Parts: sequence; C-alpha cells; structure tokens
Amino acid sequence: MLTPFDDTYFMKKALQEAETAYERGEIPVGCLVVSQNTIIAKGHNLTEMLQDVTAHAEMQTITAAANYLGGKYLKDCTMYVTLEPCQMCAGALYWSQIDKVVVAAEDPERGFRAQGGKIHPKTNISYGLLAEESSELLKRFFKEKRKR
Amino acid sequence: MLTPFDDTYFMKKALQEAETAYERGEIPVGCLVVSQNTIIAKGHNLTEMLQDVTAHAEMQTITAAANYLGGKYLKDCTMYVTLEPCQMCAGALYWSQIDKVVVAAEDPERGFRAQGGKIHPKTNISYGLLAEESSELLKRFFKEKRKR
Repeated sequence: MLTPFDDTYFMKKALQEAETAYERGEIPVGCLVVSQNTIIAKGHNLTEMLQDVTAHAEMQTITAAANYLGGKYLKDCTMYVTLEPCQMCAGALYWSQIDKVVVAAEDPERGFRAQGGKIHPKTNISYGLLAEESSELLKRFFKEKRKR
Repeated sequence: MLTPFDDTYFMKKALQEAETAYERGEIPVGCLVVSQNTIIAKGHNLTEMLQDVTAHAEMQTITAAANYLGGKYLKDCTMYVTLEPCQMCAGALYWSQIDKVVVAAEDPERGFRAQGGKIHPKTNISYGLLAEESSELLKRFFKEKRKR
C-alpha cells in the first residue's frame, strides 16, 4: 500500500520551509504542524526579517496551528521541525501539550536539552529523521555567512 | 530629590497591566519593558482571548519592545514582570540579551527555575518587589475561577 503521508514526507516539507528561510538570509529552520495527515500550519525562522527573537519557526507555527484549530491545545497534532527546539520553543510546546514532535537535527549547544528546558511529559519526541539534510543546510548557511 | 521613575513605580504600572488581564478573565500577569526611564512596551497575558499558549505578557512585550527599538536585542532595557517568567519566556529573554529583569512574585511550580530553564548569564534578575500585591491578585483570580 502507498503511504505518501508518512513522517519522511512531512519532514521533507519542513525542510522546504527551512530552504525558504535560507533564501531569505534567515538561519534555515523550518517547521510544520500536522493534524490527521493534514498540514494545518507551517513556518520558518523569521528573526532577522521581523527583528524579533521570538519569531522562531516553531513559535509561529504553534500560533498558526492554534488559530486553525480554534483552540490553544495541540493535543492530537504532530510537529515536524528541522532543528531541535530551543528552550523558548520547548516551553511553548510544553504549554501546547502537543502529542508528538519529530526533530531532524539535534542541537547540542542551544537545543532545549542542553539549555535545561523540557517539554510536556505526555509529548512523544524523536530525533534524527533527515538530520543530515538539515545539518547540511545549516552548515552551508553559516559558511556562506562567514564569507560575507 | 524626587525620583518618580524607580523600580517600584514601574512595577506598579506592570501590576496595572495584570489587573487589566484579571478584568478580561486572563491569568493576571502584567509586564513592561523600560529603556532610559521610558516605558517602550507593555502587555498582559492574553492566552485565553487569543487562544494561543505563546501569548504570555512577556512574549508580547519583548516583541513590542524590539519593534519600538527597531532591533531584536534589548541590551539596555529592563523588564518589569509581576510573575516569574516560565521556561518559554525565559528562553525569549535569553535570546533578547536583556540587561535587567525585575520580578514581583516567584513561581515555584511553573517558573523557569523550577522548569530547569535559564536566562542569559549577562542578565541581572531580582525577585520580590511588590510580590504580595501580585500574589494577592493571582490568588483572587484562581479563587474566583473555582467558584464559577
């Protein structure tokens, strides 16, 4: 049976969001929220364009998903994100009580686990799906940035 | 010499924001950001009205202050907030590199220190200013809420 809507499918879509961020000169992180196999929100990092430290991909996507659902809890939703969330985003995920988070690349420096934060105990989280693609994009971004 | 613009003056203004939240049926937390003795941003919790877990007083105020300053870093600013920030808000403060945070009431359950988060090592933080007034308002809110 064909199952087009699997985790890899959605993570590829999140990576497309990260690529859009890259093209806009933003640290390339992309994110989406899925409910019942439907993408209900997507976003990418916009901290430079908005000059707003809170404009991480995850924050925008959580807000947009809640808006779509008409309620602030994302209990039956899954987030696909190309980089491990920071403490701030983990905090927002904590409050949202999201069901599942699928992370591509880990962030040993500024990821929430290194910063000491936590997500909701009910949230299932996994790491590593398409991690190389995500890391590659991030490395390319910082290499380009150093050149300028 | 009269010094009307001291920490107490600004915390009272933050408490007024918390009272506005209370009147709107929101958990009463208020916040403001001050730069050079001028209030450049203020806000209160709006998670219920916006149905958005990210709409804490601090998050909105950080965004508004950055907007006012035209830059995402709040290096020369002070935040006055009536309740200890949660992990999410501490994360946002971390990224903002804010100079100083003055907190009224501590939050031993959901404050960032209990949740394991952290703010920027350069940020000076203090607790307890008008803490009783803030706690009183919070207690009144939850007592009213239980009655309904």
